[in-house]
Amino acid sequence: MIPSHWYNIVPDLPAPPPPPLHPATRRPVGPGDLAPLFPMELIGQEVSGERFVAIPEEVLDVYRLWRPTPLLRARRLEKALGTPARIYYKYEGGSPAGSHKPNTAVPQAYYNAREGVRKLTTETGAGQWGSALAFACAQFGLECEVWMVRASYDQKPYRRSLMRVYGATVHASPSTVTKAGARVLADAPDSTGSLGIAISEAVEVAGAGEDVRYALGSVLNHVLLHQTVIGEEALAQLGEAPDVIIGCTGGGSNFAGLVFPFLREKLAGRIDPVIRAVEPAACPSFTRGVYAYDFGDTAGFTPLLKMHTLGHDFVPDPIHAGGLRYHGMSPLLSHMYELGMFEAVSRSQIECFEAGVRFARTEGIVPAPEPTHALAETIAEALRCKESGEAKVILTALCGHGHFDLAAYDRYLSGAMEDFALPQERIDEALARLPG
Amino acid sequence: MIPSHWYNIVPDLPAPPPPPLHPATRRPVGPGDLAPLFPMELIGQEVSGERFVAIPEEVLDVYRLWRPTPLLRARRLEKALGTPARIYYKYEGGSPAGSHKPNTAVPQAYYNAREGVRKLTTETGAGQWGSALAFACAQFGLECEVWMVRASYDQKPYRRSLMRVYGATVHASPSTVTKAGARVLADAPDSTGSLGIAISEAVEVAGAGEDVRYALGSVLNHVLLHQTVIGEEALAQLGEAPDVIIGCTGGGSNFAGLVFPFLREKLAGRIDPVIRAVEPAACPSFTRGVYAYDFGDTAGFTPLLKMHTLGHDFVPDPIHAGGLRYHGMSPLLSHMYELGMFEAVSRSQIECFEAGVRFARTEGIVPAPEPTHALAETIAEALRCKESGEAKVILTALCGHGHFDLAAYDRYLSGAMEDFALPQERIDEALARLPG
Repeated sequence: MIPSHWYNIVPDLPAPPPPPLHPATRRPVGPGDLAPLFPMELIGQEVSGERFVAIPEEVLDVYRLWRPTPLLRARRLEKALGTPARIYYKYEGGSPAGSHKPNTAVPQAYYNAREGVRKLTTETGAGQWGSALAFACAQFGLECEVWMVRASYDQKPYRRSLMRVYGATVHASPSTVTKAGARVLADAPDSTGSLGIAISEAVEVAGAGEDVRYALGSVLNHVLLHQTVIGEEALAQLGEAPDVIIGCTGGGSNFAGLVFPFLREKLAGRIDPVIRAVEPAACPSFTRGVYAYDFGDTAGFTPLLKMHTLGHDFVPDPIHAGGLRYHGMSPLLSHMYELGMFEAVSRSQIECFEAGVRFARTEGIVPAPEPTHALAETIAEALRCKESGEAKVILTALCGHGHFDLAAYDRYLSGAMEDFALPQERIDEALARLPG
Repeated sequence: MIPSHWYNIVPDLPAPPPPPLHPATRRPVGPGDLAPLFPMELIGQEVSGERFVAIPEEVLDVYRLWRPTPLLRARRLEKALGTPARIYYKYEGGSPAGSHKPNTAVPQAYYNAREGVRKLTTETGAGQWGSALAFACAQFGLECEVWMVRASYDQKPYRRSLMRVYGATVHASPSTVTKAGARVLADAPDSTGSLGIAISEAVEVAGAGEDVRYALGSVLNHVLLHQTVIGEEALAQLGEAPDVIIGCTGGGSNFAGLVFPFLREKLAGRIDPVIRAVEPAACPSFTRGVYAYDFGDTAGFTPLLKMHTLGHDFVPDPIHAGGLRYHGMSPLLSHMYELGMFEAVSRSQIECFEAGVRFARTEGIVPAPEPTHALAETIAEALRCKESGEAKVILTALCGHGHFDLAAYDRYLSGAMEDFALPQERIDEALARLPG
């Protein structure tokens, strides 16, 4: 069954998250500040104090294309590992865009269309968010213009094509069509780009157009809210209480979507799982960043967000998990991490692809590079269970298929894949430029 | 619900299909003749007189990864067309390989593994069958060696990579590793290949190995049998009687899988749909071929099959729907076509891609090039309903997603896609070489 409501965890938290601040006044941002970027309905959801938000019928009608998604037990992987653990994964790759991203793209397009918006702009890393939004815009008759991080634009031409099939316009970012992009290119003509830069470009164009708005694929509260369909379904599907829940984090929406409903149950004392975020070693905002007010984008157009950050102009190495190459982290998740509500670890690129191939050969589904981070940690947890003899129940999110990432798998299989070291100086250098 | 049994239509036919013949003796082929190529269980299914065959628990366990598949109503497409018709599609693209092919790859790998086979060989056109078999072999611990038609090997590098992720060995066909391939290359060094040639190569290697067998992705009775899970599910899911059922045909397995259960109901007088096969104009075995005994492969290694054929050495133009580039047709479907149990039409490449983009922008799923043939015909039928005012119920099979085919969509969107004329002389020339 598809849930009838999204779950908003904010009112259930022991303390409210710090508000976003206006960069000039340093005072909390109000709805009026956000109105040039987002429709009122989404602004309302961003600051909502309601625990549950009803999913509109028009959105459910599109969700039905691929929801409810399956929750599967990885019996063949368990057997191959020789673990007593029971591993479950919630698979979101059956959506039209091949990932969990349409869960929020569809309501975002719907609310914008209802409020008379003509065009949405956005950024995309690996192309998963961009293709999800392009798909959603096509469903509700909106135009769609996407800035795709250069590293992925070159590595993943097929996701670019997918957006075009849906009728979207796609630029490589940094691009020359915005001031923010042109400024980056002036300093670094070979820039491989980053989500932060691409956000600046999309925000710049949205801010300049009367009936143009911006859509964000992660980080913000309303995006995390929409993704809770994942966890609500998993909670209903899982026939037992989980001991460990593991998800990958870039901006945090997939992780939040899976874990928020379980955290609600944990806060209510009904279950007591360990909850663990897994981030790339090349972009470790939880494990090596600081918790501070910073910009959500590179150019400094967005409000200041209190979050775990590596610095707004930190450019991560071009790992194939383009969707995790973000300098910051959801402010809501950052706040919850500070409250000790979950733990975080990082994994390097090669061990993740190793986990991806292992998973594909046993379970049959080729994972996108992003969820291979969660799989690498899941396999490590299952092997710890093998040693300790514990039959833990492990739940993870397989948030997308890797059918667009096979060039990266080729690279891994041929032994040519690189691991990236991240020297502390690179982080320190970017953090030195945090806004005062 | 996943069905518990596959449906065998043969005992329900008014007349049995003509048997395959041994090319030398011209006498019906017996189980002993097939034993070097197939395990006994599949040979038994090939000639079975039982109406229903139980699906083994081990196969159901893998089916559960993606089955039951959704049956969806194309409401947004209907609205865009302004048709009173109700269009339903059964979507098979959520499988690990992205198409309907794992429905038979899994039982084939299972039965071979159970009978002690070490390695399976096969051919693949667009790569859908090869990746399905590679996936299935990985599930049951079998090696897998695939000959991939050169035209697709070059056009679709990612499907090739997908097979390698699953651990398979992949050759471009014609290849130099077999006598059959080397012979073709000697005559035509630039050959783009064909399914017929690739079959010759895979059969040659299987025939030469003690614990090596061959697996075919379409054409044969046992393959069509396994695909009936599609139609059985659709029959249970569709809340009303269909007026028209439309499927694309290459070797025929997707079409048969959808329509056989409905034909059973039609033969029993419970429903009365028109049933229509759609083939590519570049490879029109039903609509421009002859019904005659011919080889299933190019080199003439297989038994003689009574089928609709364009001649066993006919090489279709390199259309992007690689899975439909087969000179022949399932003998069972050919027999049923002669009995008048369904009709057939052909569609050209560009009108198919036009339908694919139209479908993607309204329904959200990007179709593989093969099912765009069925969609083009479905759209034409829905537009005829618009003219006549008839609210027909149209059912079609969306047998795979097009995430591996975006280079072809790019070509279409840029206006560079070619349509291929097929002069009658090319068909006549190939038919002149039918085995006496």
